[in-house]
Amino acid sequence: MKSFAAATRELKRRLGARVVLTDEQTRFASSFDGSKISFLPEAVIKPRKEDEIGVVLEIANKHRVPVTTRGRGTSLTGSGSPIRGGWVLDLLALNRIRIDPEAGMAHVQAGAKVADIQRAAADQGWFYPPDPSSKEYCTIGGNIACNAGGMHGGKYGVTRDFVVSLRGFLPTGEPVSWGTATKKFSAGFNLRDLWIGSEGMLGVVTGAVLKLIPQPAARWTLLTAFPDELTAIKAVLALFRARVQPAICEFLDRESVLCAERVTGQPVFPGQAGRAVILLEFAGGVSEVDDLKLDVLAWAREHASAHREARDRNEAEQLWTVRRKCSGAMFELGDAKLNEDIVLPMQSYTKFVRFLAKLRRSSGLPIPTFGHLGDGNLHVNIMYHRASADETRAAEIAVQQLMETVVALGGAISGEHGIGLAKSPFLRVQHRPAEVKAMQAVKRALDPRGILNPGKMFDVVRVWKYPRVQIQLPWDHK
Amino acid sequence: MKSFAAATRELKRRLGARVVLTDEQTRFASSFDGSKISFLPEAVIKPRKEDEIGVVLEIANKHRVPVTTRGRGTSLTGSGSPIRGGWVLDLLALNRIRIDPEAGMAHVQAGAKVADIQRAAADQGWFYPPDPSSKEYCTIGGNIACNAGGMHGGKYGVTRDFVVSLRGFLPTGEPVSWGTATKKFSAGFNLRDLWIGSEGMLGVVTGAVLKLIPQPAARWTLLTAFPDELTAIKAVLALFRARVQPAICEFLDRESVLCAERVTGQPVFPGQAGRAVILLEFAGGVSEVDDLKLDVLAWAREHASAHREARDRNEAEQLWTVRRKCSGAMFELGDAKLNEDIVLPMQSYTKFVRFLAKLRRSSGLPIPTFGHLGDGNLHVNIMYHRASADETRAAEIAVQQLMETVVALGGAISGEHGIGLAKSPFLRVQHRPAEVKAMQAVKRALDPRGILNPGKMFDVVRVWKYPRVQIQLPWDHK
Repeated sequence: MKSFAAATRELKRRLGARVVLTDEQTRFASSFDGSKISFLPEAVIKPRKEDEIGVVLEIANKHRVPVTTRGRGTSLTGSGSPIRGGWVLDLLALNRIRIDPEAGMAHVQAGAKVADIQRAAADQGWFYPPDPSSKEYCTIGGNIACNAGGMHGGKYGVTRDFVVSLRGFLPTGEPVSWGTATKKFSAGFNLRDLWIGSEGMLGVVTGAVLKLIPQPAARWTLLTAFPDELTAIKAVLALFRARVQPAICEFLDRESVLCAERVTGQPVFPGQAGRAVILLEFAGGVSEVDDLKLDVLAWAREHASAHREARDRNEAEQLWTVRRKCSGAMFELGDAKLNEDIVLPMQSYTKFVRFLAKLRRSSGLPIPTFGHLGDGNLHVNIMYHRASADETRAAEIAVQQLMETVVALGGAISGEHGIGLAKSPFLRVQHRPAEVKAMQAVKRALDPRGILNPGKMFDVVRVWKYPRVQIQLPWDHK
Repeated sequence: MKSFAAATRELKRRLGARVVLTDEQTRFASSFDGSKISFLPEAVIKPRKEDEIGVVLEIANKHRVPVTTRGRGTSLTGSGSPIRGGWVLDLLALNRIRIDPEAGMAHVQAGAKVADIQRAAADQGWFYPPDPSSKEYCTIGGNIACNAGGMHGGKYGVTRDFVVSLRGFLPTGEPVSWGTATKKFSAGFNLRDLWIGSEGMLGVVTGAVLKLIPQPAARWTLLTAFPDELTAIKAVLALFRARVQPAICEFLDRESVLCAERVTGQPVFPGQAGRAVILLEFAGGVSEVDDLKLDVLAWAREHASAHREARDRNEAEQLWTVRRKCSGAMFELGDAKLNEDIVLPMQSYTKFVRFLAKLRRSSGLPIPTFGHLGDGNLHVNIMYHRASADETRAAEIAVQQLMETVVALGGAISGEHGIGLAKSPFLRVQHRPAEVKAMQAVKRALDPRGILNPGKMFDVVRVWKYPRVQIQLPWDHK
């Protein structure tokens, strides 16, 4: 890997050794993200003021030093792993949050934790819906970088739908702002939304203004069980056809439910172990939710083999246990996971469930699947044992078939994780050559020296061939 | 102006004389948009199939022919006026609409009329909220080009918030798609949202998938009057602070109300002529709207000098008359109008009202102002007489002061009309040099030969110096 010692020395002189860290421990800790694929950077830069980022980029651009911007490093795609070395720009210290209760907006710095933003908003009666499962760890900067979603996407939308304006730096170190802190903006090309989801490859976001919505007055949670996946999916489609819009509509297939039941030691519904499960949450005005309850309970009696409603927040939390436990428990099925966050249009749900059953048979691998039916964003987990060449090959074939099928069904290869390294082999399954060419032209236009997060998205990296750091991260599902 | 006769002949050979029109009358009709600033194109191309657009662009790109894409031509900024000649690409014939009632999405071609999309959606119980006042004429392609808004922006958002995916052509004639017909998408750079609002300068949109929301079960309309603008604005802010979110919240200042009253021949509220008016519409579930009514009527009794509710849709339509009549009636105050659709953050509303009062005094011009308080998008109409050099100069100074103030207050120079020609002198009031440079780099990357809608946005054009076509357009406010 190329060395940038002179540039690092120059930067240290400019910003000081407290901001520019080169010790082994710090460099190792920033060498991987949630994917656990590790590449050692030459320095880790921890700015305390946004202006310092301008200096970092100016010097990096001059010396062509790769710069990988990082929040908490929860990304699952390797987008936070500095594959070309160079510098990691760690924005965790930039974590200010200010709520504007009158306008219903949050003014935040990139390193602010998503759950902290939600709590600060809730304190003033406002709601910030996007909620990746790592929300107690991940930063809003990272959420903007991969256009993170979560369980509320179907009703409320994803990160993009809540970003009102961004500020940050071009790779030259010049400060820019995209959008104003207003709900409308039609004044020049929309680089705000081009930056969102660009995985740190087009600019560095240092702050954002987020739209908030009024905190719903009432919530109601219902857990339902179905004999199999197809019955569950058909039931949900019936609910959608009746124009009922849950705030959350989480699906767990039988394999996922069995995983959760192994951990908790008891079936989700007594006497009905290993059923497919749909967890619904409704939110809105008090009378609105009351009206819905009757309809939804009638629907559950007609379609589900069992259902249980939460009478208060504590009971709701208990129902959520099954969803939280399933993911970690999957590692009993294999020591390696290809976790694909594909998205499907609603009319393909049933076709996809049939395809998954076939894929399990043809690959011989467990593929527990769960996810967000409100927006079609399913987490397909291909489990295998890394030491087995046969299983690794089977997983590699299965993920290729999965991606080709998803695109053939009109879907997307990623709904909320982004491309990074992990999805890079499939970018060209999703996009035609002219589309990739246009994206690359935009990359060259905004980052002519290619310093921002190089080696991601467009270079094909087969992540299953890389070793992983053996470490338990705080946000790993237990 | 440069001639492209050879290219036009080549295109006519390829697509035929029914698609490639060169008669004087057709060329004149496509020589201007709602701004009425006219530049004659060499040919007008009316494709019947999307594929033909690929051919048009391939030949245009080869010969460097300027291509101005056009729907109905309702733009108010001159973005549809072919200032460099060349070809106008008229997409009106591509107007298919298909509603997917299960997924709640509309599949439309670029030439589909916005009101037709709304009606098709409503037939299936769905709602497409963006509603520019020209919705009975304008096309969705044009709405996407300028990220059109309308009265529903505060609660529901603008065109961008409802575009799920786009398809179209690069200036090379290569077909591309951005996004999939799903609610989530995080797979590669987001060129969908870069195209939205790019005013036909980065690609040609031929079709879109739009998100729909369930049609609200209940609506309720209330008209309120206030002694002056400041009282009205403060009352609205009190409503927002109470977390009440109207679907529509239209403001008319006293000057706008007087205009409407001159046309209708009667005061909006008997005995209270020339009051500032706020027109509110609430939408939602039946019990939700019922709950709101009590709170809102209490608010009106406390803050307004008069109020009147609509008991049914007919009465609601009557209340809307005042809003519809004001705009056309302004031409009694002057024969020329600089219509600026600025946007303000909520905390600047009262400061801005005070600024406007000063601007009226210093310019000596009538500046009737109305607009959407839900999202801060106000239409400031600087009225003057074209024949008067003094008034023209006063208008020119006033618009410059307006834009500088709006940006200083944290607002945007355009909320829904876009830049085109009309706002080009103010692009650099809004954006720093590095921002404009980045936009221009993106333009060169995606349209290296500069054929798509050249001469707009970045070139400074002082539209008040151009003559206007003397013609009454169907969507001109009467």
